[in-house]
Amino acid sequence: MAALAFLLLLLLLFLGALASSSASAAPARRPPPFPAGTPPLLRAASSSSGGRYAASAVASGGKAAPEPEKKTKNPFRAHYFPQELDHFTFTPNASRIFYQKYLVNDTFWRKPTGKGRGAAAAPGPVFVYTGNEGDIEWFATNSGFLFDIAPKFSALLVFIEHRFYGESKPFGNESYGSAATLGYLTSTQALADFAVLITSLKHNLSAPVAPVVVFGGSYGGMLASWFRLKYPHVAMGALASSAPILQFDDITPWSSFYDAASQDFKSESKNCFSVIKAVWDVLDERGSNDKGLLQLSKTFRACKTVKYVDSLSNWLWTAFVYTAMVDYPTPANFLMNLPAYPVKEMCKIIDAFPPGADIVDKAFSAASLYYNYTGDQKCFDVEGGDDPHGLSGWGWQACTEMVMPMTVSNKSMFPPSSFSYEEKSEGCLASYGVRPRMHWITTEYGGHKIDKVLKRFGSNIIFSNGMRDPWSRGGVLKNISSSIIALVTEKGAHHLDFRTATKDDPDWVIEQRRQEVEIIQGWIDQYNKDIAHMSQ
Amino acid sequence: MAALAFLLLLLLLFLGALASSSASAAPARRPPPFPAGTPPLLRAASSSSGGRYAASAVASGGKAAPEPEKKTKNPFRAHYFPQELDHFTFTPNASRIFYQKYLVNDTFWRKPTGKGRGAAAAPGPVFVYTGNEGDIEWFATNSGFLFDIAPKFSALLVFIEHRFYGESKPFGNESYGSAATLGYLTSTQALADFAVLITSLKHNLSAPVAPVVVFGGSYGGMLASWFRLKYPHVAMGALASSAPILQFDDITPWSSFYDAASQDFKSESKNCFSVIKAVWDVLDERGSNDKGLLQLSKTFRACKTVKYVDSLSNWLWTAFVYTAMVDYPTPANFLMNLPAYPVKEMCKIIDAFPPGADIVDKAFSAASLYYNYTGDQKCFDVEGGDDPHGLSGWGWQACTEMVMPMTVSNKSMFPPSSFSYEEKSEGCLASYGVRPRMHWITTEYGGHKIDKVLKRFGSNIIFSNGMRDPWSRGGVLKNISSSIIALVTEKGAHHLDFRTATKDDPDWVIEQRRQEVEIIQGWIDQYNKDIAHMSQ
Repeated sequence: MAALAFLLLLLLLFLGALASSSASAAPARRPPPFPAGTPPLLRAASSSSGGRYAASAVASGGKAAPEPEKKTKNPFRAHYFPQELDHFTFTPNASRIFYQKYLVNDTFWRKPTGKGRGAAAAPGPVFVYTGNEGDIEWFATNSGFLFDIAPKFSALLVFIEHRFYGESKPFGNESYGSAATLGYLTSTQALADFAVLITSLKHNLSAPVAPVVVFGGSYGGMLASWFRLKYPHVAMGALASSAPILQFDDITPWSSFYDAASQDFKSESKNCFSVIKAVWDVLDERGSNDKGLLQLSKTFRACKTVKYVDSLSNWLWTAFVYTAMVDYPTPANFLMNLPAYPVKEMCKIIDAFPPGADIVDKAFSAASLYYNYTGDQKCFDVEGGDDPHGLSGWGWQACTEMVMPMTVSNKSMFPPSSFSYEEKSEGCLASYGVRPRMHWITTEYGGHKIDKVLKRFGSNIIFSNGMRDPWSRGGVLKNISSSIIALVTEKGAHHLDFRTATKDDPDWVIEQRRQEVEIIQGWIDQYNKDIAHMSQ
Repeated sequence: MAALAFLLLLLLLFLGALASSSASAAPARRPPPFPAGTPPLLRAASSSSGGRYAASAVASGGKAAPEPEKKTKNPFRAHYFPQELDHFTFTPNASRIFYQKYLVNDTFWRKPTGKGRGAAAAPGPVFVYTGNEGDIEWFATNSGFLFDIAPKFSALLVFIEHRFYGESKPFGNESYGSAATLGYLTSTQALADFAVLITSLKHNLSAPVAPVVVFGGSYGGMLASWFRLKYPHVAMGALASSAPILQFDDITPWSSFYDAASQDFKSESKNCFSVIKAVWDVLDERGSNDKGLLQLSKTFRACKTVKYVDSLSNWLWTAFVYTAMVDYPTPANFLMNLPAYPVKEMCKIIDAFPPGADIVDKAFSAASLYYNYTGDQKCFDVEGGDDPHGLSGWGWQACTEMVMPMTVSNKSMFPPSSFSYEEKSEGCLASYGVRPRMHWITTEYGGHKIDKVLKRFGSNIIFSNGMRDPWSRGGVLKNISSSIIALVTEKGAHHLDFRTATKDDPDWVIEQRRQEVEIIQGWIDQYNKDIAHMSQ
């Protein structure tokens, strides 16, 4: 069950972005449709032990560090790196130290020996997961791909937690208090954290020349690709899985996410698509009075009678969007278990209804696949959960840098909505006391005409995307140069390639992962040749 | 006389770095040998006029802007761009607006027409000078090379002032007050300023696809090359003149700067080198008591009797180091006028002394070439000037990011000195209340094994260096790839290529500038081809 839990985390958090992107433009009667709070699976247990990789500080600080190393139940050890709060100023707060968690597995690593010549003497590569918006143990535990390939590469595995998430909160429990603390939660600071930590770690491991490849999925994939572009002297390659780096400004059509999610359903069955498209108005109409809400609450098997019809819409919306993103070809032992190809299964449920069946019954039954595939839910907590307006790290990021405009078009099966920069800005000011920098991401990292810009600049990046994942539409889907490569799988979903290999994997997933290994091996071989050549 | 004044500025400021690098390790009796204060030539007059390029803010701010445009005596107009204080956090102060000065000349620009096809329809390029540590008007007025080549390229010229210098001080007169304000003076923030301003300006000029090439000399050259590496989507090429981007950590031998300066003198005359090398001990010995200082004050024609013998050493030191840096092949109408090849002239003076002449007389006479070539100085203000410990922008930068370790070896003709990170750190804490991040520059921008890192990453950078300039030793002196090019002139000095062409220029300077134009033309042609190809 834990195996895919991190995916849920990604989904939840990414959907937070999605929701906060569209929230301001949604009808006032509709509360922001993102899932409430953080899933309980986030809390990972860990116990302490010795201190082998205890990192040295790049800056001194008088504070006591946490235990330098923790042994976990998992095949990695936790360490804590003293990191400076603000890499880009020297204001009085800037050099305040916080402890950034990172995990290490050196089981397979070929350590530097200083003996021999050429590639034989070269240390194994360092594979770094550039952590995203959550607890790093979950990303590590669930990025089985890295563990699967580490032996072949004799690689050291390092998973670095993103500042302000998990145990890496610079102000402890006060970290999410206000802009005075949350203000330091930015992607640029996170990238600099990675650069400082990796540089220090390699120094301490006596492996300054070991090649570093960064890996990341979703927002972590965006970070991985940006890290390769901004810090080529630290990482010689990047595998960015399901990284929607073009989901900013007007680079990707604003309606593409929901159009793509809808297309997943339409491709299975036009009837399925039409039923879902039609259900929203019916729901609104029936839920316009208390009697209707009472009836609908029964239909939806709600544990408590729902107060707002929008809660029911959101419940459906969540099920359909999530399922599109994780439309995996194998059963996913998820927070909610899902069968292989769950979109197809949902549509089968809808299509199996007899002629004349009620449309709301159809939609509810399909959504139940998502919420209750195992059949052990007796009722659904439709309006439960945490306050969706509570401060969250990703909510903050979506209201500062990560402005991804999204609309729902008439072509989609979701209720139409628009996007306005002005409303977004006012909404963020109200929720977080901050105004977004709407175009900062493309100013800092680019994105416009990326094919032209990177055709003759940069190298060694794989952008992998599965077209069943609506986020793929904001990804890089075509090769840019001979070494900036797009790997696209028509039937893939949200960073499927990062999952542990299973015996049920279809050939095209196996082939995708094989290509990734082959390309990365090519980078490392070339790197080691360059090193050997220059050492002569 | 103004024509080379900016060079002095660079020298003074760069020497500030140099001095603050070595100051902590110098004997306690020797005060930091950097020139006192900022030269009076820095104050440029300007008058106001209309507002054609008044830039729109990327972020809103309630403060009144300065006059949107000022007409100057020079062939450019001054504008002010509302810039955010901190691009990398969203803390409460981060979005405070300051007005960044920039200068525009559009005399030669081929504006976008939207008509025609291919290159004929393409707007002319935008040539941006990435301002360094001083008033932007001086960089613009004295970067004649850009004005010389603008007509050929039909280029728009833009000179952007570096934050915290000239009129671009975020906190006005309080800007240099303490780390709370000066903390925002960093190279990373400056690069982000450039990115935001250029992106906005192109948008406002309806020229989003116009190619941008960045130019810079000295620290400005470092910024230009880093900008191309960090913001390839904003600038498609960079000409970095005399940019010592490898003068950090242990990439370049710490003694190379003073060894190179000494070599300039030795190459002219071994006797000249030996005289200067021997003078320091003689000076110290003679100046060890009041009687000796009185006599030396007469020898040095000091306006007032000097109190410390180190003042005399510094006076000589300054003359020899400055002259090495600006050992130009043409007469330089400088703050202090200098003839062509001034090092050769200094050595001629020393060598012309009869056998048995006094060594201090020789050194003084040579240094007088620097201070009094025109012969109008009746006495020298050896101990005058501002407090060398006063807060300066470059002094701050040298105590935060720009840590360039330097030593003086026994091979050089200067008094030996060592460098210690610990002493540097303590010195900076005492002077500025801040501790340097000793290895931040190479973590953020790279530098170690730059040939390997950039062999397969990045493109379109020219590093130009003149080997008479001691800073050249910290520059990129070999081609890295087919489009990351080193242009080295054996007889060139500190960013000679950026000066206005004169009829006296030797062939090798003319050839260097021709190559630069040819290479940049190649970048632009390729860029326009790529654009045309992708538009089809």
